[in-house]
Amino acid sequence: MCSDSKNGSSIKLVTGSGGYVLEDVPHFSDYIDDLPTYPNPLQSNPAYSVVKQYFVHMDDTVPQKVVVHKNSPRGIHFRRAGPRQKVYFEPDDVHACIVTCGGLCPGLNTVIREIVCGLNYMYGATKILGIDGGYRGFYSKNTVNLTTRVVNDIHKRGGTIIGTSRGGHDTSKIVDSIQDRGINQVYIIGGDGTQKGAAVIYQEIRRRGLKVAVAGIPKTIDNDIPVIDKSFGFDTAVEEAQRAINAAHVEAESCGNCIGLVKLMGRNSGFIAMYATLASRDVDCCLIPESPFYLEGKGGLFEYIEKRLKENGHMVIVVAEGAGQELVSKSLQSMNQKDASGNKLLQDIGFWLSQKIKEYFAKPNKLSINLKYIDPTYMIRAIPSNASDNVYCTLLAQSAVHGAMAGYTGFTVGLVNGRQTYLPFERVIEKQNKVVITDRMWARLLSSTNQPSFISTKEVGHSHEECPAQPLDGENYKEEVMANGDISTSVP
Amino acid sequence: MCSDSKNGSSIKLVTGSGGYVLEDVPHFSDYIDDLPTYPNPLQSNPAYSVVKQYFVHMDDTVPQKVVVHKNSPRGIHFRRAGPRQKVYFEPDDVHACIVTCGGLCPGLNTVIREIVCGLNYMYGATKILGIDGGYRGFYSKNTVNLTTRVVNDIHKRGGTIIGTSRGGHDTSKIVDSIQDRGINQVYIIGGDGTQKGAAVIYQEIRRRGLKVAVAGIPKTIDNDIPVIDKSFGFDTAVEEAQRAINAAHVEAESCGNCIGLVKLMGRNSGFIAMYATLASRDVDCCLIPESPFYLEGKGGLFEYIEKRLKENGHMVIVVAEGAGQELVSKSLQSMNQKDASGNKLLQDIGFWLSQKIKEYFAKPNKLSINLKYIDPTYMIRAIPSNASDNVYCTLLAQSAVHGAMAGYTGFTVGLVNGRQTYLPFERVIEKQNKVVITDRMWARLLSSTNQPSFISTKEVGHSHEECPAQPLDGENYKEEVMANGDISTSVP
Amino acid sequence: MCSDSKNGSSIKLVTGSGGYVLEDVPHFSDYIDDLPTYPNPLQSNPAYSVVKQYFVHMDDTVPQKVVVHKNSPRGIHFRRAGPRQKVYFEPDDVHACIVTCGGLCPGLNTVIREIVCGLNYMYGATKILGIDGGYRGFYSKNTVNLTTRVVNDIHKRGGTIIGTSRGGHDTSKIVDSIQDRGINQVYIIGGDGTQKGAAVIYQEIRRRGLKVAVAGIPKTIDNDIPVIDKSFGFDTAVEEAQRAINAAHVEAESCGNCIGLVKLMGRNSGFIAMYATLASRDVDCCLIPESPFYLEGKGGLFEYIEKRLKENGHMVIVVAEGAGQELVSKSLQSMNQKDASGNKLLQDIGFWLSQKIKEYFAKPNKLSINLKYIDPTYMIRAIPSNASDNVYCTLLAQSAVHGAMAGYTGFTVGLVNGRQTYLPFERVIEKQNKVVITDRMWARLLSSTNQPSFISTKEVGHSHEECPAQPLDGENYKEEVMANGDISTSVP
Amino acid sequence: MCSDSKNGSSIKLVTGSGGYVLEDVPHFSDYIDDLPTYPNPLQSNPAYSVVKQYFVHMDDTVPQKVVVHKNSPRGIHFRRAGPRQKVYFEPDDVHACIVTCGGLCPGLNTVIREIVCGLNYMYGATKILGIDGGYRGFYSKNTVNLTTRVVNDIHKRGGTIIGTSRGGHDTSKIVDSIQDRGINQVYIIGGDGTQKGAAVIYQEIRRRGLKVAVAGIPKTIDNDIPVIDKSFGFDTAVEEAQRAINAAHVEAESCGNCIGLVKLMGRNSGFIAMYATLASRDVDCCLIPESPFYLEGKGGLFEYIEKRLKENGHMVIVVAEGAGQELVSKSLQSMNQKDASGNKLLQDIGFWLSQKIKEYFAKPNKLSINLKYIDPTYMIRAIPSNASDNVYCTLLAQSAVHGAMAGYTGFTVGLVNGRQTYLPFERVIEKQNKVVITDRMWARLLSSTNQPSFISTKEVGHSHEECPAQPLDGENYKEEVMANGDISTSVP
Repeated sequence: MCSDSKNGSSIKLVTGSGGYVLEDVPHFSDYIDDLPTYPNPLQSNPAYSVVKQYFVHMDDTVPQKVVVHKNSPRGIHFRRAGPRQKVYFEPDDVHACIVTCGGLCPGLNTVIREIVCGLNYMYGATKILGIDGGYRGFYSKNTVNLTTRVVNDIHKRGGTIIGTSRGGHDTSKIVDSIQDRGINQVYIIGGDGTQKGAAVIYQEIRRRGLKVAVAGIPKTIDNDIPVIDKSFGFDTAVEEAQRAINAAHVEAESCGNCIGLVKLMGRNSGFIAMYATLASRDVDCCLIPESPFYLEGKGGLFEYIEKRLKENGHMVIVVAEGAGQELVSKSLQSMNQKDASGNKLLQDIGFWLSQKIKEYFAKPNKLSINLKYIDPTYMIRAIPSNASDNVYCTLLAQSAVHGAMAGYTGFTVGLVNGRQTYLPFERVIEKQNKVVITDRMWARLLSSTNQPSFISTKEVGHSHEECPAQPLDGENYKEEVMANGDISTSVP
Repeated sequence: MCSDSKNGSSIKLVTGSGGYVLEDVPHFSDYIDDLPTYPNPLQSNPAYSVVKQYFVHMDDTVPQKVVVHKNSPRGIHFRRAGPRQKVYFEPDDVHACIVTCGGLCPGLNTVIREIVCGLNYMYGATKILGIDGGYRGFYSKNTVNLTTRVVNDIHKRGGTIIGTSRGGHDTSKIVDSIQDRGINQVYIIGGDGTQKGAAVIYQEIRRRGLKVAVAGIPKTIDNDIPVIDKSFGFDTAVEEAQRAINAAHVEAESCGNCIGLVKLMGRNSGFIAMYATLASRDVDCCLIPESPFYLEGKGGLFEYIEKRLKENGHMVIVVAEGAGQELVSKSLQSMNQKDASGNKLLQDIGFWLSQKIKEYFAKPNKLSINLKYIDPTYMIRAIPSNASDNVYCTLLAQSAVHGAMAGYTGFTVGLVNGRQTYLPFERVIEKQNKVVITDRMWARLLSSTNQPSFISTKEVGHSHEECPAQPLDGENYKEEVMANGDISTSVP
Repeated sequence: MCSDSKNGSSIKLVTGSGGYVLEDVPHFSDYIDDLPTYPNPLQSNPAYSVVKQYFVHMDDTVPQKVVVHKNSPRGIHFRRAGPRQKVYFEPDDVHACIVTCGGLCPGLNTVIREIVCGLNYMYGATKILGIDGGYRGFYSKNTVNLTTRVVNDIHKRGGTIIGTSRGGHDTSKIVDSIQDRGINQVYIIGGDGTQKGAAVIYQEIRRRGLKVAVAGIPKTIDNDIPVIDKSFGFDTAVEEAQRAINAAHVEAESCGNCIGLVKLMGRNSGFIAMYATLASRDVDCCLIPESPFYLEGKGGLFEYIEKRLKENGHMVIVVAEGAGQELVSKSLQSMNQKDASGNKLLQDIGFWLSQKIKEYFAKPNKLSINLKYIDPTYMIRAIPSNASDNVYCTLLAQSAVHGAMAGYTGFTVGLVNGRQTYLPFERVIEKQNKVVITDRMWARLLSSTNQPSFISTKEVGHSHEECPAQPLDGENYKEEVMANGDISTSVP
Repeated sequence: MCSDSKNGSSIKLVTGSGGYVLEDVPHFSDYIDDLPTYPNPLQSNPAYSVVKQYFVHMDDTVPQKVVVHKNSPRGIHFRRAGPRQKVYFEPDDVHACIVTCGGLCPGLNTVIREIVCGLNYMYGATKILGIDGGYRGFYSKNTVNLTTRVVNDIHKRGGTIIGTSRGGHDTSKIVDSIQDRGINQVYIIGGDGTQKGAAVIYQEIRRRGLKVAVAGIPKTIDNDIPVIDKSFGFDTAVEEAQRAINAAHVEAESCGNCIGLVKLMGRNSGFIAMYATLASRDVDCCLIPESPFYLEGKGGLFEYIEKRLKENGHMVIVVAEGAGQELVSKSLQSMNQKDASGNKLLQDIGFWLSQKIKEYFAKPNKLSINLKYIDPTYMIRAIPSNASDNVYCTLLAQSAVHGAMAGYTGFTVGLVNGRQTYLPFERVIEKQNKVVITDRMWARLLSSTNQPSFISTKEVGHSHEECPAQPLDGENYKEEVMANGDISTSVP
């Protein structure tokens, strides 16, 4: 966690005065010589004709850290996204494709819509294919012609009109398909794994020396992509999660010794659970993957539940899907269950925790409790993006389009400290963004729920000592940003 | 607009290497000597005990500009908000009051709640008065004791539980009232004018040498406060505005040659109208105060309406309440109307525009049109804040509480590039944040609506020349940030 | 009101024992001899093949009055709607058209969808035209082919996909158009005036001896169509009105001496205002067309406003658009204003009342008040129908289709005491359904708001004496039914 | 089902001409002599003073059947609810209590509110206890004083403020508690089992000769109470279920061969599933307890799923919680599972069906499918009632209050054919209301989903023959009423 293990080899670095470093993204000109360029057609677009400073200055960059001291070094920067004076494609030459991978997330359709509209209205490019059903759609004959008419109202619907799936990634078959179809711009919308796939596709394309731009738009409802402020759809998800928490609260209040238990998304990071808890104020306990907890004994969950029920007669627990996985695994081993469907079932922390709580309180001399378990996952994922995410998705899509048109490739778009940037793939796939539980935002949560920390201060103090050089913009800054809808990263 | 007319005299400035400037906020120690300090009680708060780096480093600052070049100077910074090691109040000494001024805005109750809970749970302070009905409540005997119990559920309701009003500001009476009641922390939630009032109250308190902290929380549904990324409640307002736009779209589509006209908030700045338009995609024309328009003749609004109705048979217009005021005034003069209520009426741009459009199309040989006018203002202002704004309000309130406890005064809290900061009052009242129509976000809007720019490029070019030294993080950056829910300012 | 002025000449009457009367609807066989009939194709529809008693018995009727005494006479009945054993059209012969007239109402698209799907899936009929933009669409060449694919998702959208307009009715041109196009089933969706138009179209068709079925589906968001339990969209409208009332309540509560004023639909009847008030419980005064009120003096509105503001500091007033029109007219005359647009403006009771209240309280020695006026009309009309209205619209549409297929014509469909029936046009156009203010539902409202009745008991007593013979199922029953979402009528 | 097995012994019957029968409810005067009566205080209530015909005529009754023939007999009637001229309690004598039992249902708080406000505002009665947490609350010391102030805003919240529980019924302890506390009006809100309990409490009270009115308000989100048109909260539940169906539809559409499976409430009757399906139109298969189905083989569910996925690539299944229980039981036996928690789990039809479908398609040569399972139960139950249900709950509560004040006891209130009535307990507990699958509403559903009927016509035909005398107002009428939000019953 403390050491900076950047595999810098592959990242283009530019340095400047005062410790300034730019981590740049690849460009066609890095591996293809003498490509012709064209004036950006936006120059003659009436909507842009009144804009004084439309084009991004080629030296514009955005720092990763914005909490600084008077004399601190300037640190890492990223290239600012936006339209360039010169483009590498003529309108009629563009042959783009869009693919969505992984689980649903509010805003997918808006991103698709705005790539199509951006290419069309800003750059006059109209040949845009929708790859059907994720990476494996590259091997299929079914594609959708994405016109502005087809995409006109899709931002009002949840899901993705071009379908999605997990896995199915075969680099050389995909690049073959790209070559066969004559595609020269590939827009890949997906999470962690998908962006890794995009990076490999880019490398293969570069190896073959093709003039094909690969642009990633990071998608993760869990908000677990590093560096960027927040992922699209996250706001919408936190908002929608309020319904489930509210229902749990009403159920819990209306019957005696009642626990409302809500499972929210978050395989490896508890952002949705944490923000939904902070926004709601009706939650008595929030369990996330980053904060290990235990059930029995002093300071454990059962003790806390008993305490709250005696005080209040009811309580609400929010649990992220990835929380307590080590407990579930341990429990499974001890039960020595081998049944496939049984296993699966028990790995559902929400269900597993419900059973454990019920079992505990079914013991003699324990409170007779009620427990209502709510899993709103699909109801959250499937809604359309809200207004804020709609605008955010629009900017992401347009940034990707500007980047590809300008000859950049092998990049992902991302908001960094409130500015659109181009990030090297490495930066967003090398690790996952996580809630830092030794940080103030988590302290705020603990303070609002009054739940136990499940951590001894000693433990924490110890790990702290191992990492003494946390100078400025460390872990304790990141979640504050997110409160504003932004998440910066915990870059060491 | 171009010249930097900072009345720097009153702002505490700190400078550093590479052009670093810190615009600092006042502190008790600036005018009172030898005040005792106490260890921050958060140190023994169980919720915070696990946090490694809870306290903000006293040198932490946040730059105003985050788009930089390799060798650009570092520029203006603001003090980072957050808890300090030492505080200037013992829990029992704190006697706080909260006042809300001006129009309603989603999130007011959340801010009130979190000041009360923050003081109570974090600092053990329990004497908190609600001033009833704005500044003039200081002269009244009615106050509300704000306990954590009283405020527990108020974030789920719109409005403000302590009431609000406009005006009523009499500095010396207010400071007398503060002294008489023994209040030593004053939290003032309100817009432009309210913050000006807060600045004057602070100056009078300082003149009298009182140990009373004055903290502002800027409130404006219009998002017209400069420097800060965005104002609380703005996201919620843009979301709710979608309902009205959608209704206008349905009405317009369902009858022949029909115009749906929606008036949205925005006296001096068109942010709500612009973002609501960008999020909706159903709007054909968006009129804001920053972009003058005209009705008749070539390139005018009537011509555009005729064109759209002929093409599509319907259209949706969004107009900010402050748009076209010069047209309304001119029209009134020519009509020589003197009736007070009549005047008021006609200054309502929505109503005025409806009449003008109807009159125009009532002429011979014009299309026979329908026009449906929707004014959702109060329905937007009165809703509770959404999840995103709830979390944002929480951080603002806690920042204010941390600042006052730490002895800062005469400051307003604000999010700058995603970080909580303390800002000198001067910075947020010296001018208003506005949509920069020569910027890319407005170009995006024009591109999405296809409306005329109502501006000749010549004009723009001209004003451009007057302001040649716009170096880096100029006007064209600000709205991009906002897409992320943040608005930075157009400070040169 | 008291005398039964049925213009019975044109209604087919059947009498039975115990005072039983059936008011029947016309049928092709009334004026065309020897028409062939065919077995109902539903008999071989798999979905219906398991239904034991699918077809409606030809003698099934529904009583208009359901509050009865042991020995009371049986009274008026209507023919039950539903599929018949024999139909008068072969699938391929059907050539239907659908027209929507008047203002928007939630559910229009659902009715359109279900006529199309009903004809198609139940009867195999596929030639269905959408007449564009109301009655005047009959003279235009533009029509829409309505297929099940086209209408598949339209129930999720507000408005009407085939457009609507007011007026434009020219009987002989319409019937010419029907003949020219070879249409033999005409479905007419609209209010009072539209149904009158439908009645005249039917008469002209009958005069010409055409085998063309004319079926009305009554539409009125105001719920002012007599005999039927309630009109479609009414539930949805009352639900949506809650938003506006809630906003008015929040605004009023948040500032001193503040009045929230909401104008709701209801030109001639105050059902929406009354039900929205009863459902909300936040309203202090509800003004409807049926209950005249006055502003000044003892028992007047101003006196009541003063009283409430002194007690509570705020209040909410709901006013139906047709309320107090006599006051507005009087006021206009005295002001002798002749300006056309001025007049229009002042006839808006909401705006007029706002001005009057402001003027009154602007007088010396009066409370200084705030008034927030909300007109949510278009935001209510334009939403999609809720689940309850969706099912209701489905049944209405299917009843209309069954009736036309079975050879009935000159009828409107309507729910009477919870059953689908066929009603003679005369019955639904002869008068308007109104809130009976001498009835219990209005008393409930008065009791919930505590507003003055604006009526002297003497007055009421008098009118009562004029109408002594109101035996059983009189006016005081109707609103109770409506509480269930049903409104029966005040038929004498 | 066919024979009329009325255990008429305990029901008070009154007969009249033309086959008229009144099934009356008990009254104090049936078992207590010479009770004093008082004029109804509503006579001097200003809100009611203008109402001409406020009091219900003592002969007013409502027929159970409203589909009649010219010469059909008049049949069963119920006593109309409403205020009477004479009451049996003086305001100060009233000592009421309210208890809520069973699961949550939208509208509970509105019913509580309106009993309290009704007693208070209409009858001046103020001593009203809330029994805490269902029947077992009678044995506890904890009670809540329900004042109009306490209940003022509770209709805007889900759940029940006085708590609820299942079971806990001990007749003699409850009646002892009623006597000890001096309670003389008992309002019991609950379902089937609760109303049975209420009937027994009434009988014990009558046996003891107490002047204690027992009034039931039937509550069942499943809408399975017979005779009455519909139960409160049902509309709200169907509306809210749309969210889950919509999410399932989006998920299913967005991935290949994907099934969205939604479990809705309905232990013994499938009304919510059926109405939610009809309102949504996005459902391909609706499974309810009344319609047995099978998985394998011709005409089975698996075959249908395969067909739909091949045609459309996705499908949505709605399953009522009580559907297919015989399949689950069979499956359990064959698996010979004895584990308690395992059993419970598998009896969850939604989960069981998910597993079965996944297992089937996991077989070789089967489609590779995705399945997303949504259980929105608690999210539906916990929401506040919508406007329509709010008004309905108000009328039910007021009817109960009027009845108890007028000396009626041992009754439940219910809407019958759109009118408020008093029903003997026997009538609502003798059986459950069910979807009649040989009826038209179910045929409509089959027609809209195109699902198999899972029934051979032969089977149905057979059962039909056993029940030949179904003359008029048989099973096939009931659901039509419900479409209007009313459900009448399948009276034999």
